[in-house]
Amino acid sequence: MCGIIGVENNENAAVLVSAGLLNLQHRGEESAGITISGKEKMKTFKTMGLVSTLFNEDILINKLPGTAAIGHVRYTTSSKSSLLNAQPFQISCIHGNLAVVHNGNITNFHQLRKELLKKGSIFNHTSDTEILLHYIAMSKGNLSSIVANSLKKLEGAFSIIILKDKTLIGVRDKNGYRPLVLGKIGNSYIIASESCAIEALSGKYVRDIAPGEIIIIENGQIRKSFFYGKSKKQNTCIFEQVYFSRPDSVMFSKTVRKARLKMGEYLAEQMRGIKADIVMPVPNSGYFAALGFSRYSNIIFENGFIRNYYVGRSFIKPSQSLRDLTVKLKLLPIKEVVSGKEIIVIDDSIVRGTTSKRLIDVLKRTGAKKIHFAFSCPPIISPCYYGIDTPSKEHLIAANNSTERIKKYLGVDSLTFLRLDNLIKACAPESRKENLFCCSCFNGKYPTKVPKKIYKEIV
Amino acid sequence: MCGIIGVENNENAAVLVSAGLLNLQHRGEESAGITISGKEKMKTFKTMGLVSTLFNEDILINKLPGTAAIGHVRYTTSSKSSLLNAQPFQISCIHGNLAVVHNGNITNFHQLRKELLKKGSIFNHTSDTEILLHYIAMSKGNLSSIVANSLKKLEGAFSIIILKDKTLIGVRDKNGYRPLVLGKIGNSYIIASESCAIEALSGKYVRDIAPGEIIIIENGQIRKSFFYGKSKKQNTCIFEQVYFSRPDSVMFSKTVRKARLKMGEYLAEQMRGIKADIVMPVPNSGYFAALGFSRYSNIIFENGFIRNYYVGRSFIKPSQSLRDLTVKLKLLPIKEVVSGKEIIVIDDSIVRGTTSKRLIDVLKRTGAKKIHFAFSCPPIISPCYYGIDTPSKEHLIAANNSTERIKKYLGVDSLTFLRLDNLIKACAPESRKENLFCCSCFNGKYPTKVPKKIYKEIV
Amino acid sequence: MCGIIGVENNENAAVLVSAGLLNLQHRGEESAGITISGKEKMKTFKTMGLVSTLFNEDILINKLPGTAAIGHVRYTTSSKSSLLNAQPFQISCIHGNLAVVHNGNITNFHQLRKELLKKGSIFNHTSDTEILLHYIAMSKGNLSSIVANSLKKLEGAFSIIILKDKTLIGVRDKNGYRPLVLGKIGNSYIIASESCAIEALSGKYVRDIAPGEIIIIENGQIRKSFFYGKSKKQNTCIFEQVYFSRPDSVMFSKTVRKARLKMGEYLAEQMRGIKADIVMPVPNSGYFAALGFSRYSNIIFENGFIRNYYVGRSFIKPSQSLRDLTVKLKLLPIKEVVSGKEIIVIDDSIVRGTTSKRLIDVLKRTGAKKIHFAFSCPPIISPCYYGIDTPSKEHLIAANNSTERIKKYLGVDSLTFLRLDNLIKACAPESRKENLFCCSCFNGKYPTKVPKKIYKEIV
Amino acid sequence: MCGIIGVENNENAAVLVSAGLLNLQHRGEESAGITISGKEKMKTFKTMGLVSTLFNEDILINKLPGTAAIGHVRYTTSSKSSLLNAQPFQISCIHGNLAVVHNGNITNFHQLRKELLKKGSIFNHTSDTEILLHYIAMSKGNLSSIVANSLKKLEGAFSIIILKDKTLIGVRDKNGYRPLVLGKIGNSYIIASESCAIEALSGKYVRDIAPGEIIIIENGQIRKSFFYGKSKKQNTCIFEQVYFSRPDSVMFSKTVRKARLKMGEYLAEQMRGIKADIVMPVPNSGYFAALGFSRYSNIIFENGFIRNYYVGRSFIKPSQSLRDLTVKLKLLPIKEVVSGKEIIVIDDSIVRGTTSKRLIDVLKRTGAKKIHFAFSCPPIISPCYYGIDTPSKEHLIAANNSTERIKKYLGVDSLTFLRLDNLIKACAPESRKENLFCCSCFNGKYPTKVPKKIYKEIV
Repeated sequence: MCGIIGVENNENAAVLVSAGLLNLQHRGEESAGITISGKEKMKTFKTMGLVSTLFNEDILINKLPGTAAIGHVRYTTSSKSSLLNAQPFQISCIHGNLAVVHNGNITNFHQLRKELLKKGSIFNHTSDTEILLHYIAMSKGNLSSIVANSLKKLEGAFSIIILKDKTLIGVRDKNGYRPLVLGKIGNSYIIASESCAIEALSGKYVRDIAPGEIIIIENGQIRKSFFYGKSKKQNTCIFEQVYFSRPDSVMFSKTVRKARLKMGEYLAEQMRGIKADIVMPVPNSGYFAALGFSRYSNIIFENGFIRNYYVGRSFIKPSQSLRDLTVKLKLLPIKEVVSGKEIIVIDDSIVRGTTSKRLIDVLKRTGAKKIHFAFSCPPIISPCYYGIDTPSKEHLIAANNSTERIKKYLGVDSLTFLRLDNLIKACAPESRKENLFCCSCFNGKYPTKVPKKIYKEIV
Repeated sequence: MCGIIGVENNENAAVLVSAGLLNLQHRGEESAGITISGKEKMKTFKTMGLVSTLFNEDILINKLPGTAAIGHVRYTTSSKSSLLNAQPFQISCIHGNLAVVHNGNITNFHQLRKELLKKGSIFNHTSDTEILLHYIAMSKGNLSSIVANSLKKLEGAFSIIILKDKTLIGVRDKNGYRPLVLGKIGNSYIIASESCAIEALSGKYVRDIAPGEIIIIENGQIRKSFFYGKSKKQNTCIFEQVYFSRPDSVMFSKTVRKARLKMGEYLAEQMRGIKADIVMPVPNSGYFAALGFSRYSNIIFENGFIRNYYVGRSFIKPSQSLRDLTVKLKLLPIKEVVSGKEIIVIDDSIVRGTTSKRLIDVLKRTGAKKIHFAFSCPPIISPCYYGIDTPSKEHLIAANNSTERIKKYLGVDSLTFLRLDNLIKACAPESRKENLFCCSCFNGKYPTKVPKKIYKEIV
Repeated sequence: MCGIIGVENNENAAVLVSAGLLNLQHRGEESAGITISGKEKMKTFKTMGLVSTLFNEDILINKLPGTAAIGHVRYTTSSKSSLLNAQPFQISCIHGNLAVVHNGNITNFHQLRKELLKKGSIFNHTSDTEILLHYIAMSKGNLSSIVANSLKKLEGAFSIIILKDKTLIGVRDKNGYRPLVLGKIGNSYIIASESCAIEALSGKYVRDIAPGEIIIIENGQIRKSFFYGKSKKQNTCIFEQVYFSRPDSVMFSKTVRKARLKMGEYLAEQMRGIKADIVMPVPNSGYFAALGFSRYSNIIFENGFIRNYYVGRSFIKPSQSLRDLTVKLKLLPIKEVVSGKEIIVIDDSIVRGTTSKRLIDVLKRTGAKKIHFAFSCPPIISPCYYGIDTPSKEHLIAANNSTERIKKYLGVDSLTFLRLDNLIKACAPESRKENLFCCSCFNGKYPTKVPKKIYKEIV
Repeated sequence: MCGIIGVENNENAAVLVSAGLLNLQHRGEESAGITISGKEKMKTFKTMGLVSTLFNEDILINKLPGTAAIGHVRYTTSSKSSLLNAQPFQISCIHGNLAVVHNGNITNFHQLRKELLKKGSIFNHTSDTEILLHYIAMSKGNLSSIVANSLKKLEGAFSIIILKDKTLIGVRDKNGYRPLVLGKIGNSYIIASESCAIEALSGKYVRDIAPGEIIIIENGQIRKSFFYGKSKKQNTCIFEQVYFSRPDSVMFSKTVRKARLKMGEYLAEQMRGIKADIVMPVPNSGYFAALGFSRYSNIIFENGFIRNYYVGRSFIKPSQSLRDLTVKLKLLPIKEVVSGKEIIVIDDSIVRGTTSKRLIDVLKRTGAKKIHFAFSCPPIISPCYYGIDTPSKEHLIAANNSTERIKKYLGVDSLTFLRLDNLIKACAPESRKENLFCCSCFNGKYPTKVPKKIYKEIV
């Protein structure tokens, strides 16, 4: 998972991209970077950690004069992560200086890389994004056709923004796995992973970049927009609405919040027989589903956990003695809400099961009488090859255990997963429900050929 | 505002105090510190910024062996703040090595300091806490009577924990302005500003330290507990329940959450005539009041703002162009919730009015049809001399303007403040409603003589 | 200017390379880096600033297991310098993972880069070193022939060490502009810019890598050594002996110290008529020449300046008021040595003239009666295209002024430059004096075609 | 050992003190600090490490407006050192805000501290300097008589500068153990540990502060100067000239350089029978003695060691494998100077003997034929109680071994110590040789009562 953004035709491009990244930070906390051009030579600044570390007047105001900029936040659980692989990647090639940001996973990366190595290419990074840069550098002609031709070789998931001089090029893969939206602020266009970043800058959401679309923007004008390839089916990651995207982002013409309220309603419908004193979310991802559940079922909504936002990753690292305290420190049950009650707890999804187990244990020790655990999506049974960092199959609890066994492991009184048909109904727009989503993590049906191994790191 | 905590008789004292501080972090983000003793020589570590910066295995595990520890987080808006004034203060005196942490404000500090200077004392800090250390150092006898006698000279607000060898001494001023609670974890006692820090460590809340009480704890035993002075009236800061304390903390035998739900109910009662599509909180402090409002009024509860937890102070500092974006970046209105609606917005309190004004503007631009703004406390008309960093009277909007004028300034359709009698009813325990609270910021009635000027900094 | 080193077949490779870099630090203080391989995956660590910042147990001992390593220190006055251009460069190509360090300047870089760009190559750095990596990546066959073929395209100055798995490849350009020596420590070979780094590791200097030689070392064995091209004339930079190299390094079978003593003797011979009370060096580069001068002339040698080693670059940066103090803070004249005396001052060379001017002013204010200024090399009249960061011609004082005018500008009583024939005699070995040195900065005769502009930065 | 400096009546006070500290850095590298006043409130900045870390435009120019300032560098081998004990100490007392810097050791500290604790004083530091602040704070009257009366209680070594508003007070103990000099720059007075710091600021050395003198300076005027107590004998530490002071500092009307040249001459006289090819110093402390030796003996002077100034403490800390390389990395013997030669090596002194032993080993391995080792002072047989950090008696090699045994341990061909009478002749001024020096480390005769234990740390 990553978040990307680009702004053009704006004296405050660097400031806007940085502020926009702050609103894509939920898509990645590991590294942040920005490239700016349009006035002086193209320049790139990157940092490990949060976007806020990029922020000091020097970098944004003095060191980064320009009118076009792109930015990136990166999410990685891989321990090999480093500043080297932080984006944007800035390079020099026959077409001049280019920078690129990328969200997604190129599934035929391994094979393409091998071919390029044979041709004599050198790789400075371990990221799959470098592939595209090689293809662009090796092609001749105008930039839009070069990009189109280059993309034809790539399979998998990629929402990409390219910066060259004052020009932004936005690209979304044929399946439209990862979101990418177009917005406007004054006379400037914005391209971003999610609409919430556009709203935050007081910009206006214009439309989604379509699957397979290439859009070229310069001087506040859309110079060109065309399809480099078209597929019959769109395959947008449904997990974006379940978990990754921010509730105020618009996807398929409605907010993620609304989709999640619906997920809660459908869950309530599925669980109609179950009686409970309260329904409560696991903060924050279960919030709107729990609210929707409550509205549908008339079971009272409660915030039974206090989330401590000061407990971050920096805290989790140290000694074992501290790590044992962590779940309790991050999510604190409120005794008077939980104790002696029959409760319905709503979380977004279950992956390995260990976090859920610890949460249930905490609730029991706090005195919950009965616990009904529900997830706003189906069991995850297959790894993702399109940019989400799920573990391999052997670590997915639902890939290896029946619902009954998971229920026993967690020690809950009932366990419910939102049915896939209900999830799709919750996420799809009114107008069209078919052929919109990639649900491969739930049903194992991959829209493209998948690599034998999830690509983690090569060099 | 500050947060304090102490743990004794525990091999993990340093870890527990640090983890406890993480759950008092809402009481102060400026500096954090810890002192430990009981094994080797007493040692103190302090840092500017968040508790998490104290956390690395070295400090907590290797460098801080001991069985008793105290910690402190500090909140200051004063620009003169520095590591020098971060607590704990560790000193050496005739009684040996002592460390102390303090939450509150000594109102006769200026006069006592003058007397001590005349007697030849030297001050290394600009904090009022140093006064107490001088009195202790100048007294003879056993420590408990020394502390009792020293405290008799102090006026104002102080919840204090003193560490000496393996002993913790907890003290609360006669009026009980600031909270201080006693808890237990295994064979160890904990003293902390709020019960939530005890719960977070899986400890058990035992009771409040009483106003005027001194409690001395050692080797898991309460060695002594007595009153150094008794006042007829308790005067606990009612603003703790309105704003400062965490919702899961227990005050006057109920959670702050419950008090806030009640505030919302009383607000709903006061606003009975008003019709609206939704009621929504200003996150996070207005959350439970808005929920209570909704339950009482049956007006639908909505989270109309998304709060971005990545936007911290570090971001606010830089350039003007960024600062202008800040409110929008930190609190993002969800258009579909707000637009075209008649809304009730619940916040905790209004101080200068500038933040409220900007919030209302954002809501209007997002398309709110009508806005009813309500606060879960009365207008703040007088500064606090007991530890809360309110500005002086001329900057308090409600001290200088009628409700009608504030309504116009904000441009809202109605403006409601919770009545003081309702606030007291919401906060007080069932059993006793009289003589419990200091409400001086709302009614200007100060329980003690107040200094002419709020003490900010002396040296 | 840069310093490079490589060690193979040694469990302490990372430690040895780091310690060796400490002894090449005089060749560059701007950035430092190390790459290690041979056990786990190849890894690179770089830092801005001194080698000592690389040193912490973690990096050297835990994070860098391996048996072969290369290192680099970089000298740059260019303000565009950044971590991005710090070496080693580590890449992945058809031959696997490679890392490279480079000292020198490729004079046909601009043209080669253009050709590569046309072929579709991408450049991640602005350094000329990346060229070589592209050539290697694009070639097939065994590594030694690939390197040989790649090098044939490069013109200019390059001493290079390549690391691949457990193998070190050392390369020196046909002219031998920059030094590169071979040493041995136990069963391991060392390649380094100067012999002093080998001595410091208690290793043994074996021989110089010859101009045009490629040497391939693995498992403590020289697997191969051959010439990729041979030129009739060697053109080693004579300025290495004048200034850059450390006095204890061996060049042309004698120490740099000895060459400098000789420079002093020849200077003394040239200045035979001049009477003086003392001869004193500008520390540290004039030291041995002044000593040689004293021994030849019997004029008493004095250290008239105290050099303050605490005054580094970090100090020079801040405010103007501080900068004005800098010369005085770094070099302090001892009044009793200088005052009332007729003195001979020996420095290595004059570039812009500003530093010399300020030194002379300080000496005068300290009371020097007469000042005879002498340089241990001829006037610098032409820029260097082979790796030394001399300014362009218009900034070279001696390129634009006669000795007489420089004398007047400095305000000295006499001004002497070591004659080029004397410098060559001082630097050359007994056995051979012809066709050894590049003296282009003194005589404008460049051994190769030179670019129109000194390459500073491209991207 | 510490270095102190004060400047008054100067708009650049902060810059001058900082630049002065750079020239006292040889007296301590552990921490650095500066206090400034005279315009705004008194402010103090401190840092662990070198003076250069204090230097950034912000601190010096913007944050430290004032016209008077004092500074301090600290030398400590104690591992308990921390920022807490870094000086200046700034306090608030009945006389207002005061800051103080101190070089030396108060020998009756332990007893005075006990008395003060009994009186009710609190100690924030573990340093003996805090004592003086207590005495000043507890006294009434004008500042000069207060300081005089306070000093009467202190025994031992102290050169002190006090800053109050625009006033500097310089104090030197009755014995004059530690140096303290007065200088002038424009209309401003400077007080400093050594004259070299005055020269570096282009100031003029005026005179020594006399033993027992108090000097009060304000607005560029000496307001008062008097003796708080007079002793018949001066007892200035002779080791300042042997080792600590910088060669360009003036002590007893001649430079330290001159005294060291003389030490070398007397050593040469003592060693008249010994034949050698060269005489060489251990850099840098043996430099001038070796030069003096050479001039007297006509044995040729050589710099046989290259000192690597990049090898600092930061390097020494890491892993064992690195530490073993350290001596070799810091001092590199030049083979051609040493090998096959009979050499005289001059060092300043021998303490534990381990460093000397390792140096001799290195010289032998480099091929020295015969080694005559000579020290420019007598054997150190007693610890120092007056501010020099010598180890206790059992660790002093010369306190426990005859010269013959030390010679054998080191494995040298001869071993010579400068005789005390010769050392005194070298260091004393022409006019007066008696009763000037404390030589207690050489002869065990302490001018004052000494504590049973060297004071290291109390709290």
